[in-house]
Amino acid sequence: MSLTTKLHFTSTTYHSFNSKSSRFRGYNTKIRPKSIYNFNPLTLSFYQSKRMQGPVQSSSTSVIKSSLIEPDGGILIDLVVPDSEREAKTVEAESLPKVRLTKIDVEWLHVISEGWASPLKGFMREDEYLQSLHFNYLRLKDGSFVNMSLPIVLAIDDETKERIGSSSDVGLVRPDGDLIAILRRIQIYKHNKEERVARTWGTTAAGLPYVEEVITPAGNWLIGGDLEVLKPIKYNDGLDCYRLSPKQLRQEFDRRKADAVFAFQLRNPVHNGHALLMNDTRRRLLDIGFKNPILLLHPLGGFTKADDVPLDVRMEQHSKVLEDGVLDPETTIVAIFPSPMHYAGPTEVQWHAKGRINAGANFYIVGRDPAGMGHPTEKRDLYDPDHGKKVLTMAPGLEKLNILPFRVAAYDTVAKKMAFFDPSRAKEFLFISGTKMRTYARTGENPPDGFMCPGGWEVLVKYYKSLQAEEATPQPAAVS
Amino acid sequence: MSLTTKLHFTSTTYHSFNSKSSRFRGYNTKIRPKSIYNFNPLTLSFYQSKRMQGPVQSSSTSVIKSSLIEPDGGILIDLVVPDSEREAKTVEAESLPKVRLTKIDVEWLHVISEGWASPLKGFMREDEYLQSLHFNYLRLKDGSFVNMSLPIVLAIDDETKERIGSSSDVGLVRPDGDLIAILRRIQIYKHNKEERVARTWGTTAAGLPYVEEVITPAGNWLIGGDLEVLKPIKYNDGLDCYRLSPKQLRQEFDRRKADAVFAFQLRNPVHNGHALLMNDTRRRLLDIGFKNPILLLHPLGGFTKADDVPLDVRMEQHSKVLEDGVLDPETTIVAIFPSPMHYAGPTEVQWHAKGRINAGANFYIVGRDPAGMGHPTEKRDLYDPDHGKKVLTMAPGLEKLNILPFRVAAYDTVAKKMAFFDPSRAKEFLFISGTKMRTYARTGENPPDGFMCPGGWEVLVKYYKSLQAEEATPQPAAVS
Repeated sequence: MSLTTKLHFTSTTYHSFNSKSSRFRGYNTKIRPKSIYNFNPLTLSFYQSKRMQGPVQSSSTSVIKSSLIEPDGGILIDLVVPDSEREAKTVEAESLPKVRLTKIDVEWLHVISEGWASPLKGFMREDEYLQSLHFNYLRLKDGSFVNMSLPIVLAIDDETKERIGSSSDVGLVRPDGDLIAILRRIQIYKHNKEERVARTWGTTAAGLPYVEEVITPAGNWLIGGDLEVLKPIKYNDGLDCYRLSPKQLRQEFDRRKADAVFAFQLRNPVHNGHALLMNDTRRRLLDIGFKNPILLLHPLGGFTKADDVPLDVRMEQHSKVLEDGVLDPETTIVAIFPSPMHYAGPTEVQWHAKGRINAGANFYIVGRDPAGMGHPTEKRDLYDPDHGKKVLTMAPGLEKLNILPFRVAAYDTVAKKMAFFDPSRAKEFLFISGTKMRTYARTGENPPDGFMCPGGWEVLVKYYKSLQAEEATPQPAAVS
Repeated sequence: MSLTTKLHFTSTTYHSFNSKSSRFRGYNTKIRPKSIYNFNPLTLSFYQSKRMQGPVQSSSTSVIKSSLIEPDGGILIDLVVPDSEREAKTVEAESLPKVRLTKIDVEWLHVISEGWASPLKGFMREDEYLQSLHFNYLRLKDGSFVNMSLPIVLAIDDETKERIGSSSDVGLVRPDGDLIAILRRIQIYKHNKEERVARTWGTTAAGLPYVEEVITPAGNWLIGGDLEVLKPIKYNDGLDCYRLSPKQLRQEFDRRKADAVFAFQLRNPVHNGHALLMNDTRRRLLDIGFKNPILLLHPLGGFTKADDVPLDVRMEQHSKVLEDGVLDPETTIVAIFPSPMHYAGPTEVQWHAKGRINAGANFYIVGRDPAGMGHPTEKRDLYDPDHGKKVLTMAPGLEKLNILPFRVAAYDTVAKKMAFFDPSRAKEFLFISGTKMRTYARTGENPPDGFMCPGGWEVLVKYYKSLQAEEATPQPAAVS
């Protein structure tokens, strides 16, 4: 689907989602302050009017003034306790019943503590869980709602529930026993795993990576409450410098005087097809009058399935892509999105977009089959590859985000470069999957010229060759 | 949970769902015309003010003036073609590719044609299907949304899709071949049964009655479009007189000068526990100042599972309940809700409530485990019995409906009557299930005095005894 066609569709949808009154009335200023960030390029092909000129005309000289999109709920959540209170809270936490977290629980605690899930202030209580599971939203006191498509919950077993007894607060400890947080005013409720999985993934087939790694082994209870995190979450893996919080990202966008921020979520190495999408987006944003659009290249850093390329390798590959000049370092910020991966397709892509709103992005690029994977037990994609972008443009609470849907890019064997797939010349395009990349690397064969920059490709060759040595030995269940 | 406590919870919820501005500002007049129907008794325990006096104070002399709640989307949909056009449309329909409907497809066509699903104008196209499946709502052009928790879709097989080819309209025929409607501007899209079932029921376990009867045997494509129904749907089963359309019900409520309409959905015989709920609701509505609350006793008339009591028997039983004076005929309307039953618990109860808004009800009674059943493969309820009322009070598009959640009623062996279950005297209460009723009837034993009026009980005895004769022979797959 071409961007132009899709723009029209999206803009219609967008407008039908906007103010309950006339689409020509001003935006709800609470969630859409009058600033360059309210200008919605997706309306261009819809209005076919002077508005076609974009921000230059629509808000004249204020164009360059940076004024980031508001976080969901209006305030960016930050749950790390002030230094002054740390000691006292730690002493208190010591005295509370303890809940031991898994590595992935800690990743979610990290996500909540920095405000990626704003306005969520802790692991979900039952009302929040039910709204997320059934409606993909959370209602706020003022009647407005924010998107929340994945339940962010903490599971405990019967024995832990017993131990907590009637205590209203608990202490949360890392797998190694290190105290990291207090959960206040807790609520414990049933963990119906079957219902959670069915409503989140749209299947209960065996072999869903997150389900096997996290949900199946988890306890039969969920515990919700408000978080107080004793100190910022660090991983000490040499990549913490890339783990910028939404607050830090907003400061950086302000420092660079960004007048548009477009986010690109990925969990794979960057090839020239991705680069094409990102550079094309920047060009279009400049065309419609933005002066300084900044790209947030935002690889996912939490749990991923065993056959995905691990984070450290991806980060090294991404750096090479910038070094080789495929993306412009001046207008690109590379940072890590600390969320674990669900592989829940249309449901999860909403979370990926919502998290970036909280980091200040007002444009979100979505391609084919976002957050998708093959069906674990059938020979087909688990999700319709077009449902992700359709669901994203119709989702509750994402009205203020400009969705940029793209056609899939593939290798054009005639032009000898990555290009947007043209169905009329389907035979002339080559799709290079992860499996195919792996085969190239294993056999020492190079991918076609123009598929990926040489520096980035070398990183992958090194990684895939290192796997061959291991291949006799079993893979780890998951790679974070 | 007591009504009073729950009222407070509900009213808070209600207000958090109301206008995005101050709760003291007027309601959005588009969906809440200034009339007695806008008065929300659920706010009483919330405000604790003069508003406590209810409609009498809040709208003085206009109290009795009937002005029914608006249908979803503002206009009640009626898709039956005018007499003047019937002949021409029928001739046209004859010329179109045909789609043969199942008995249950016809029930859905009936539902859509009379506006129970307003503003839905036909079987869902993909955008509507995805919004319903993922968000339980439909967005309107003005940005507002209406509740739509069940996908109302029409499935076709590969051969039918082939036959339709590129035609933009199709004719719909009954199982017997009789032409009944035209579907316009059709869209054909994939029917992913696994995803539909998982997201609607929260399980994919074998043995879900609607899935086995309808979805599993259905084709791999869904066809959406706008309906034009050639003539009103009739069943000629002696019960059509009970099948009042939303339009007819609204006329009847107006004729009776109802100033409140409270709906009671059921698919089972009425026992005195149900009567207790309904009479208690009426008393409470009178207490807070309504002058003429009318009960819509609204048994579901479409597909039900084989071990439910069939419609004709239920209708006979309901009449006896009115004859025996357990419910007051003066303030009760008994009619049939033509929808098929999904047994999808918290997802389906939203549909049951939404349909009644379109019929003019502004109060909806919800009890324990609405639209629930036992898990088909595990020894437990399929849904948490409290999730139905919780989800209903938080659902999108039901803000204008007053939800009346009730505790479960059971037989109080001390007071020798049906009463609200009191956990502190749990041992003194007797729960009489359908299975238990059946045992009573089979053994000729009477249920405890005060469980059900004698006239109503006789009807069931006759039915259950008739089953014994059949019991050697296999049950039908379903009873409509």
